[in-house]
Amino acid sequence: MSPDFNIVRTARAIVRVIDLHAARDFYVNGLGFIETEADDKHIYLRGLEERGHHSYVLKKADQPGVEVISYKVAEEEDLDKLATALVDKGMVLKWFEKGSQHALGRAFRVKDVSGIPVEFFCGMDTVERMLQRYDLYRGSKMQRIDHFNCMVPDVQKAYDFYINVLGYACSEYTTTKDESIWAAWLHRKPTVHDTAFMNGKGPRLHHVGFWLTDPMSIINTCDVLASLGYASNIERGPGRHGLSNAFFLYLRDPDGNRVELYTGDYFTGDADFEPIRWDLNDPQRATFWGHEAPDSWFNEAMQFVDLDTDKPIAVSGAKLDQQKPNFIV
Amino acid sequence: MSPDFNIVRTARAIVRVIDLHAARDFYVNGLGFIETEADDKHIYLRGLEERGHHSYVLKKADQPGVEVISYKVAEEEDLDKLATALVDKGMVLKWFEKGSQHALGRAFRVKDVSGIPVEFFCGMDTVERMLQRYDLYRGSKMQRIDHFNCMVPDVQKAYDFYINVLGYACSEYTTTKDESIWAAWLHRKPTVHDTAFMNGKGPRLHHVGFWLTDPMSIINTCDVLASLGYASNIERGPGRHGLSNAFFLYLRDPDGNRVELYTGDYFTGDADFEPIRWDLNDPQRATFWGHEAPDSWFNEAMQFVDLDTDKPIAVSGAKLDQQKPNFIV
Amino acid sequence: MSPDFNIVRTARAIVRVIDLHAARDFYVNGLGFIETEADDKHIYLRGLEERGHHSYVLKKADQPGVEVISYKVAEEEDLDKLATALVDKGMVLKWFEKGSQHALGRAFRVKDVSGIPVEFFCGMDTVERMLQRYDLYRGSKMQRIDHFNCMVPDVQKAYDFYINVLGYACSEYTTTKDESIWAAWLHRKPTVHDTAFMNGKGPRLHHVGFWLTDPMSIINTCDVLASLGYASNIERGPGRHGLSNAFFLYLRDPDGNRVELYTGDYFTGDADFEPIRWDLNDPQRATFWGHEAPDSWFNEAMQFVDLDTDKPIAVSGAKLDQQKPNFIV
Amino acid sequence: MSPDFNIVRTARAIVRVIDLHAARDFYVNGLGFIETEADDKHIYLRGLEERGHHSYVLKKADQPGVEVISYKVAEEEDLDKLATALVDKGMVLKWFEKGSQHALGRAFRVKDVSGIPVEFFCGMDTVERMLQRYDLYRGSKMQRIDHFNCMVPDVQKAYDFYINVLGYACSEYTTTKDESIWAAWLHRKPTVHDTAFMNGKGPRLHHVGFWLTDPMSIINTCDVLASLGYASNIERGPGRHGLSNAFFLYLRDPDGNRVELYTGDYFTGDADFEPIRWDLNDPQRATFWGHEAPDSWFNEAMQFVDLDTDKPIAVSGAKLDQQKPNFIV
Repeated sequence: MSPDFNIVRTARAIVRVIDLHAARDFYVNGLGFIETEADDKHIYLRGLEERGHHSYVLKKADQPGVEVISYKVAEEEDLDKLATALVDKGMVLKWFEKGSQHALGRAFRVKDVSGIPVEFFCGMDTVERMLQRYDLYRGSKMQRIDHFNCMVPDVQKAYDFYINVLGYACSEYTTTKDESIWAAWLHRKPTVHDTAFMNGKGPRLHHVGFWLTDPMSIINTCDVLASLGYASNIERGPGRHGLSNAFFLYLRDPDGNRVELYTGDYFTGDADFEPIRWDLNDPQRATFWGHEAPDSWFNEAMQFVDLDTDKPIAVSGAKLDQQKPNFIV
Repeated sequence: MSPDFNIVRTARAIVRVIDLHAARDFYVNGLGFIETEADDKHIYLRGLEERGHHSYVLKKADQPGVEVISYKVAEEEDLDKLATALVDKGMVLKWFEKGSQHALGRAFRVKDVSGIPVEFFCGMDTVERMLQRYDLYRGSKMQRIDHFNCMVPDVQKAYDFYINVLGYACSEYTTTKDESIWAAWLHRKPTVHDTAFMNGKGPRLHHVGFWLTDPMSIINTCDVLASLGYASNIERGPGRHGLSNAFFLYLRDPDGNRVELYTGDYFTGDADFEPIRWDLNDPQRATFWGHEAPDSWFNEAMQFVDLDTDKPIAVSGAKLDQQKPNFIV
Repeated sequence: MSPDFNIVRTARAIVRVIDLHAARDFYVNGLGFIETEADDKHIYLRGLEERGHHSYVLKKADQPGVEVISYKVAEEEDLDKLATALVDKGMVLKWFEKGSQHALGRAFRVKDVSGIPVEFFCGMDTVERMLQRYDLYRGSKMQRIDHFNCMVPDVQKAYDFYINVLGYACSEYTTTKDESIWAAWLHRKPTVHDTAFMNGKGPRLHHVGFWLTDPMSIINTCDVLASLGYASNIERGPGRHGLSNAFFLYLRDPDGNRVELYTGDYFTGDADFEPIRWDLNDPQRATFWGHEAPDSWFNEAMQFVDLDTDKPIAVSGAKLDQQKPNFIV
Repeated sequence: MSPDFNIVRTARAIVRVIDLHAARDFYVNGLGFIETEADDKHIYLRGLEERGHHSYVLKKADQPGVEVISYKVAEEEDLDKLATALVDKGMVLKWFEKGSQHALGRAFRVKDVSGIPVEFFCGMDTVERMLQRYDLYRGSKMQRIDHFNCMVPDVQKAYDFYINVLGYACSEYTTTKDESIWAAWLHRKPTVHDTAFMNGKGPRLHHVGFWLTDPMSIINTCDVLASLGYASNIERGPGRHGLSNAFFLYLRDPDGNRVELYTGDYFTGDADFEPIRWDLNDPQRATFWGHEAPDSWFNEAMQFVDLDTDKPIAVSGAKLDQQKPNFIV
């Protein structure tokens, strides 16, 4: 049964960094984000295709951390219906009036079923779309935000909430030998995901995924980053995911925040699309070419900040024992 | 106001050809379609990403013509609700029970407001998806069907019907000097279009658009077609559309049917996306690089076949005088 | 019989422009040349791969024109041996001592057998190679100078001189129905050409060809030029040459000077390589995909400036009647 | 001082495999080599660009091993002059008359200064070039042979012989802290190399390098190999070499023989080109993006077979202590 509200897509993340100048160099000069606006505490970034004011906010702080991850709903009334549905589930919302967050309309934040600080909004200020300003394309030719990937202790619980309460659909998932769900890729827009959940110590944000136009933009990103002295910020890839079929690159920014550059995947909008199952230990699941991911990719993730206390959110151990695939090509 | 049914996307076309063998060589060897199945009167084709049995049917006939263009709805009940809405408008439906068309579920056909024979269905047999069978990739690395483009005498009328009755949204449109709508790009899935309408003698099908992964697949298509002796089947491009920002190539098959290979465009799923307006005579509208399209591209299109009589549908002259852009770079 | 001197490759051109600022914007911002140095009368440009000070000189003048096209020899003694060979043929050399031309070693200029002002030199100042400064890559990601293409009234005469006197080899050539050589591609470095000669009113310089890394750099060039308002400067392409197999784009700079962006071709360094013959009217010769070149491409070319008088060199009509292919795909 | 003979380029390798069928599937279906000819003991392979009968010979044997690596000279008289020069150095030649090796002209084999079995020849049968048969392009779109890389105990000795006796030039080299040459890239054709020597237990053949047109051909190779079940044959990459600037992929065939797919590098034909020096421990030397090569890449290589005894050639330990870089990005 579909909910009576319409969440459209992954929309923005607010990520803390210690040094705004260092972060700007990495994201703008290295990755090719458009800097919409900045003040002494924030840099508002967007991709070349995006007409919204921003999809990624760098916020100056004493230590790294993720303030919130946000989704856009279709209409203002969807926001109210969604709020009602969550309050009915006993959840506590924190509302932000239009304008109380820079360039953003009315919004609320809530701890989701895994404890992740999630935000929903409908409206954002619009700015000039740079899609056909090819003269401004740099680095990865950053197009738009695509998805979030979160580590949570109980993937099944997150899965049930996003599918049954929020109306997400599952495109692909990973199971352990005993058929427990180890990870799941869930979407609202008809791509492989808006949000993925992986079994692990959490809740933590594993990465924010950004959409590029093609694999050569990822190769070019590696070349540009290496030219600028950021070779050590390349954590994993480039490669082809088996799961999702996307071409990917994982990067760590100067504060250690992880972003994925992502292109490919496929159309998932058919109502009768059947989710694709992968065994956790299938060596082509993570990288179709059989390359192993580094341990840091499995062990390290970004801490969320508590909506109320502004302190790092406490994390719990994963419910499923296996922390990473047994890797045998 | 949204309708209470959900059309998901462009789904298939049935196109008549005189010589099945010649058509197979062009589409399978040249363009890289997967041939799902064939009998002595049909070839059922699909793209590498498609799990549906087919998205393009070649049907043997004495003369070329387009039998129907089809859309997929989300659920079986959407089909009934849509049928009711159309019958309420006074339209006459022609139902096909499940299985009466090969590999297809329950469906109905109807002449749309421009007289175009349109089909809606929910279910189709599924087959193995070849997305990760890279060893089978050939030619254009054909991925999936994307859109239809139709020439109609009255674009405003088609626009109103698809927007107001069928629940499409407009991504981009073209106007003449007096602000009449000369062409419009309308979508259900969040891409630039599922269906475009252009001012012209009609109703006729201008082309069926297929999605590729990247521009190099289009360059490769030109090379492969030229190697196989199909250079003269390349009608226009490769190039970048200003409108849609897509990278494109227009081809004529051995019977003169036109297909577009198409990659790029952008996400259009935000409810507050504002349609982009182009002047008909803007030289970067059709081709961002300023290249002029050949006259054949404006003058020639495929005839639809009447649902009842099986004869070519009569066409009328365009309502707006200007048949093509005044081209001055 | 090989000559006793060693010409290595196409090395530089000096091209006159009326507005240096307009030219800089086109070549540096549009095409991605590195500006090594400039004064109020010159801009010295080089590609990302080039360690020589420049390969293309823009020189301010009242009207466009080509001052000289230059080749690099292996050693200083090759310069002297070559000079001797030319003087023995009755040719008149004009010597320039080291430093008398900015950044250039000892050089001489001479009118070749077609009347083209040609220069030979061995040494040029070297500068930092930017090949791995991917952060500086812009537009076409310009790599290096590749070749010259000249229109001359008597291709056979030019062919004989470059092959027999200068020691070039022929990779491909075009003949008319009566087996006259209509065009020839001649090389010293083992690529398809350092210099091509085409039948036409001349001597005139048809274009200077520059090497790029791959076809996508050419697609990207079109996008960037269109973004910057240079759509009308795209004269022909992108496309694949049948002859040479290279992927190409022809551009006109703000003064109408023509450059070709060029990538692909193949290794021609085997001594037993047999030149490939093409019929002038083969539609896949010029563009493998069958696209016709515009008339301007056949009719317009750059005038050379006389070494002595600094006036435009007089041109003569072509010896072979056919000025362009009869084009039937 | 240049020698009086002219070695043109790397030309072919004869590599032993245990299972010809398995090898064919890997090289032809996986990598896209053209199979010119085969008998029950040999498969003769060439790239799409090659007009020579073969550049890579698979020879059935009981155990893997490299029979010979071969270079092509310009003219038959170069072969004789080279032979004389080598005999003058006290080397022993083994001549093969024209036709005694399939499709090959007159040739001789000799143990080079490192004990490597090297062959020189001038003529080879020619066959149809498939460069413009894009319909036959598969897998990596294999173009042509490019280079050999050999592990030898004494790189300085090999360097001196190839530079001073054979007339090679050095494009790039790697030194240890005390300025000893740890590796060197040497060329005859004007690319980065025809032959590289690396410090290591040897003589052994580290890999045969083949030229592709662009990086996407390498990405496509990974996808195709993974589809065909060859994921575990991908040993290293894809990546960008710092040294050479080439884009690369290292593969192990079913018998463990190593090939490199290679594209990029740059023009090295200027006589005044100054070799580029790299520190062995510079992390961007091997992979510009900072990725570490696996141990197998440093430790494993192919054994040569003795020209006379047909037994594996004895290998000696490396002269320089450091076997691989100290890797710190």
